[in-house]
Amino acid sequence: MSNPFFQNNGPIKISEIIKSLNLKINTLNKNHEIKDIKNLISATENDITFFHSNKYKDAAKKTKASFCLTTDALKNELPNHCTAIQVKNVLVSTSKITSLFYPDSINDDFDETTVFINDTKFKDKVTYGKNILIGRNVLIGDNCKIGHNTIIEKNVIIGDNCTIGSNNIIRNTMIKNNVKILDNCVIGKHGFGFFPIKDKNLRYPHIGIVLIEDNCEIGCSATIDRGSMSNTIIGRNTYLDNQIHIAHNVIIGENTIIAGQVGIAGSSIIGSNVKIGGQAGISGHLKIGNNVEIGGGSGVIRDIPDNTKVMGYPAKNIREFLRDNR
Amino acid sequence: MSNPFFQNNGPIKISEIIKSLNLKINTLNKNHEIKDIKNLISATENDITFFHSNKYKDAAKKTKASFCLTTDALKNELPNHCTAIQVKNVLVSTSKITSLFYPDSINDDFDETTVFINDTKFKDKVTYGKNILIGRNVLIGDNCKIGHNTIIEKNVIIGDNCTIGSNNIIRNTMIKNNVKILDNCVIGKHGFGFFPIKDKNLRYPHIGIVLIEDNCEIGCSATIDRGSMSNTIIGRNTYLDNQIHIAHNVIIGENTIIAGQVGIAGSSIIGSNVKIGGQAGISGHLKIGNNVEIGGGSGVIRDIPDNTKVMGYPAKNIREFLRDNR
Amino acid sequence: MSNPFFQNNGPIKISEIIKSLNLKINTLNKNHEIKDIKNLISATENDITFFHSNKYKDAAKKTKASFCLTTDALKNELPNHCTAIQVKNVLVSTSKITSLFYPDSINDDFDETTVFINDTKFKDKVTYGKNILIGRNVLIGDNCKIGHNTIIEKNVIIGDNCTIGSNNIIRNTMIKNNVKILDNCVIGKHGFGFFPIKDKNLRYPHIGIVLIEDNCEIGCSATIDRGSMSNTIIGRNTYLDNQIHIAHNVIIGENTIIAGQVGIAGSSIIGSNVKIGGQAGISGHLKIGNNVEIGGGSGVIRDIPDNTKVMGYPAKNIREFLRDNR
Repeated sequence: MSNPFFQNNGPIKISEIIKSLNLKINTLNKNHEIKDIKNLISATENDITFFHSNKYKDAAKKTKASFCLTTDALKNELPNHCTAIQVKNVLVSTSKITSLFYPDSINDDFDETTVFINDTKFKDKVTYGKNILIGRNVLIGDNCKIGHNTIIEKNVIIGDNCTIGSNNIIRNTMIKNNVKILDNCVIGKHGFGFFPIKDKNLRYPHIGIVLIEDNCEIGCSATIDRGSMSNTIIGRNTYLDNQIHIAHNVIIGENTIIAGQVGIAGSSIIGSNVKIGGQAGISGHLKIGNNVEIGGGSGVIRDIPDNTKVMGYPAKNIREFLRDNR
Repeated sequence: MSNPFFQNNGPIKISEIIKSLNLKINTLNKNHEIKDIKNLISATENDITFFHSNKYKDAAKKTKASFCLTTDALKNELPNHCTAIQVKNVLVSTSKITSLFYPDSINDDFDETTVFINDTKFKDKVTYGKNILIGRNVLIGDNCKIGHNTIIEKNVIIGDNCTIGSNNIIRNTMIKNNVKILDNCVIGKHGFGFFPIKDKNLRYPHIGIVLIEDNCEIGCSATIDRGSMSNTIIGRNTYLDNQIHIAHNVIIGENTIIAGQVGIAGSSIIGSNVKIGGQAGISGHLKIGNNVEIGGGSGVIRDIPDNTKVMGYPAKNIREFLRDNR
Repeated sequence: MSNPFFQNNGPIKISEIIKSLNLKINTLNKNHEIKDIKNLISATENDITFFHSNKYKDAAKKTKASFCLTTDALKNELPNHCTAIQVKNVLVSTSKITSLFYPDSINDDFDETTVFINDTKFKDKVTYGKNILIGRNVLIGDNCKIGHNTIIEKNVIIGDNCTIGSNNIIRNTMIKNNVKILDNCVIGKHGFGFFPIKDKNLRYPHIGIVLIEDNCEIGCSATIDRGSMSNTIIGRNTYLDNQIHIAHNVIIGENTIIAGQVGIAGSSIIGSNVKIGGQAGISGHLKIGNNVEIGGGSGVIRDIPDNTKVMGYPAKNIREFLRDNR
């Protein structure tokens, strides 16, 4: 499926790709055209892929890609039809090549395609306030309201019966039905993902989106970042209070309740029917099970199994926390 | 006193009320008109009330209401003149009936009554920036300033000598004299109060307001939610730093100082001359005394008596905290 | 050097200064003109200075100022050419006199000099969105972008190749080259500095600015306050995630990475190559060394030497923290 949010600049000749990495490889067919960059599993023979860690060895052996960014130590795991392109830092090179295919995905410059809503086809369909900007190719369903000064950037999709408040900025986001977004949110900007390089960090591309499922409510002043290679997802009927930060690639289940000022770091997965108290923080790359309760102010730094109540920093079983702090 | 912020849709026939709860009760006078929904104490013979817990037994015995939402177990505590309407979940039913009386109090859709300030009577009275929206029935005192892009929604009352910055959204709020509100705040939206119901939570009405007393300063990017049945109050000469979240029904005393990123959960009462350090969090339904000092980063989960200094998570006496963490 | 951001109202006659403090001192030459208020070291014979604590005794002995706000106990440390003006509270009096010289530095009223960008000389130079306001004397370099609804207040200086997103408010700020400011930030307002006085606090002046060095990125919904007497500085290639609060006078080094919802209290100095995890808080007036790593959720209340990893509340060596919390 093509990505409606970030246009693929491909095909790109392999010689151009090699050149952008400052490599010199003469043995390749310079005019071979590459359509996209994908992971080892989903790449086809028209794509380039990347292989940076031994733990993806099995996937590497089966990749269909014709080219692969990898290291000297890993290159022998690739099948014969896949030409290894040896680089120093696979992820940095992957980031550079992804930006080549998706140049719009590394910056979040304001959307220059926006026009005032009264100059769009939505002027008779949507109930709206003053000074609202709508980007190119935006879709908005039936019976929606949009408040003052809100900016809906290009390609955003909004379902039926949605209420978007005032002063919001929404980009690279798909919103299903019956969703409420209160005021002053920034939804869909790129995550805080980059390679730290002295003097000038290197941003990596974010070609994922934010997906907000049916019946959700997003409180005021939220920041919800879009995913890098996958999507950030807020599950059905999940409610967020004010001043919440959801980082890139986070996935939240259904019927979850998150109180004010909570922060969830990148790539963590939160189950369904979870309750998170105010100001709690959840580290990145964690798995929080279903029916979990996390006390206010907790700092979660480890996975939490289903049906558990935790509190504390670091968070532990709530009975233990209360006993230790009587 | 009638509520200037939320119009009462009543009187409503008791038959309509019964019907909206999906009940069938034939013994009632269907045309009996109900004026309002109130608590057990303040209800008059023209009102309906609610009684959901044994701890309100004494109030129930004395209620003047003609009808009461309650349970089979509690109904016998009511006086003879008060007809029990038996429901499964008293608070859910109360919420539904309150929405019937105050339909505007459950959602916070943008104010459709707003016009640009230069089209209002304030254009010669207020010093103002660009793109400012003012709702119906707004009152603004003498010598006030309002910054760019700010939205003052319907019925808001602002006293004399107030300075409102840019990019603020203010609704359902009464601001006294000499108050400064800096930039980017959202003040007066409904609280994070709802009944969690699988697949579609039920919001309960918020018919309270935010009241900001004389001489206060509210820092940038604050969110201050209005009360549900009572008001959220910021006491005289209390100063709030940036990025503070004050939940619904919170009451803060006078001369209190609250540093950046503090969060105060719903219905907590904070005394006068209190100092709260940055990023501290205060759980809901607590009572913090006068002259209390709460160290930065603390997590307060219990009441704190007057004249106490606390720190830690959970917060304890500051000397104890520093001794334990030398 | 004169301050381009806050105009000096001087010279002011010493008699006027004395009068504004409600003092009666008859022995002075009433017409003596004072040009500025400065600290003990930098004051010249045309300036007034202040001396409030014994620890500045050595500086006091060498001051070149002609007048000095001080106390009975300290006045004898001053040299003969410096006339002591005896006051009850030196800092409160200093604050009053500074406001006399810099009346614009105590409030942060919206900038009345702004006009829409299409009515400025930048309309052909900058790539810009809708509804953008630019104040008097703003400077913007080559190849810059400014997003919708952003307000750039008077005297702000922006370098080359900068990208400013939407809904930002920027005042009293100097931004160097290649800086990205995402959306919804408030940068350059005064800090949370005032003297608590019952019934009506006294704000002290903030005549510093915010200085953002080359190659920085500031995430969404940041609040960065300007300095009081010195500047708030974000060092070269430092990246800030969303919802970060940087208080007045904070200085951050180069190549530092700060994750979401971090708060740094007033006057703390953060080194270079520092990594700060999400929701960490740093108390005021601390010194955090170079190459320090601070774990997410930490509460730092003491100085941290170079090359140290800490975590916890209060923050301690990370190995110790993890061992104590296994």
